[in-house]
Amino acid sequence: MQTRSEETRARIVQAALKLFADKGYEATGVAEVCTAAEVSKGAFYHHFASKQAIFIELLQEWLQGLDAELGKALSRSSSVPEGLMAMAAEMKGVLGATDSRLQLFLEFWQQARRDPEVGKEMVAPFRRYRGYFSQIIQKGIDEGSFPPLDPEVAAHGLVAVAVGIVVQNVLDPGGADWYKVLQDSIRLFISGVSNTRAGVVPGGR
Amino acid sequence: MQTRSEETRARIVQAALKLFADKGYEATGVAEVCTAAEVSKGAFYHHFASKQAIFIELLQEWLQGLDAELGKALSRSSSVPEGLMAMAAEMKGVLGATDSRLQLFLEFWQQARRDPEVGKEMVAPFRRYRGYFSQIIQKGIDEGSFPPLDPEVAAHGLVAVAVGIVVQNVLDPGGADWYKVLQDSIRLFISGVSNTRAGVVPGGR
Repeated sequence: MQTRSEETRARIVQAALKLFADKGYEATGVAEVCTAAEVSKGAFYHHFASKQAIFIELLQEWLQGLDAELGKALSRSSSVPEGLMAMAAEMKGVLGATDSRLQLFLEFWQQARRDPEVGKEMVAPFRRYRGYFSQIIQKGIDEGSFPPLDPEVAAHGLVAVAVGIVVQNVLDPGGADWYKVLQDSIRLFISGVSNTRAGVVPGGR
Repeated sequence: MQTRSEETRARIVQAALKLFADKGYEATGVAEVCTAAEVSKGAFYHHFASKQAIFIELLQEWLQGLDAELGKALSRSSSVPEGLMAMAAEMKGVLGATDSRLQLFLEFWQQARRDPEVGKEMVAPFRRYRGYFSQIIQKGIDEGSFPPLDPEVAAHGLVAVAVGIVVQNVLDPGGADWYKVLQDSIRLFISGVSNTRAGVVPGGR
């Protein structure tokens, strides 16, 4: 059961998420968040040091949820290629999200350019994902699914594809079936990694 | 030789580019652009209907220049895989850009969410690139470089990789050698396309 304090905190986060997404981070004031959440300023500052703190918390909450889903998808799978496809399937909810989370993505990035503190928090997950997927590719090599190749090179490519699809999904939701694009692209990626021989540059035939 | 009118117009564009990138689009007023460009408001409105018009012009100028470079790189190449690598090489300047153009990218996207007019202009190039690269992949199939596969699927993957790398390059310039990441990723992509058989889903081995 949620305590009253937890319930208040959750209400602040929800109100801030909606306001940031609707009006933008910069245009939203703490006073507005308090009004929307029906809490006092004192209650706000009991839970969050600043507007920025709540912004960073929103980002981290969102990614923690995503990470947990991706981790589960991988652990259910019997090989890394299968795991990557299962992880792509987990993204269906993210890409189809009608809530304001994904819309907030661009706001985070915009804010990251202006504020070094937010910038550091924003860049960290990208670096972490590149490291995380390097380990997964290495596991794929170790289990014999992939030929020996530089796992970091492959991880960079994989994260780039995912980022590029999430961005286009936000900007142009009706432009494609982004979930299908993600699945097709991960399949192409697996095909590419499987076809790569260490040190060989496929540049034509 | 530039006429005086062209020179004035170019000065407005340069001033606006710098202000939009430094302060953001929303925070920049036409009056400031005029001051920075050392032109009258009358001169500004002679060239541009609104702040939004200049914003869209900046985007289009930037993409036109890029498109010309990409087209040249492709036409110099003797095969599509070689052409794709040559196009990746053309991106070196874009990814290493120390000017404010690339920084403006996020501002465009942010603005696109808020303003349907900008949104339409912003979404159009993505769709155009997906169409353009579909044609290139089809050419690769026709010339025998690639097996028969759905060129649209491949084009989506290719554009996603490029978008994901450009975004990460803007957010985290020091996080990787993004030019190398692009080259490696395009190579992986070519490898993946070459390895794909129509209707076959590589999901493991």
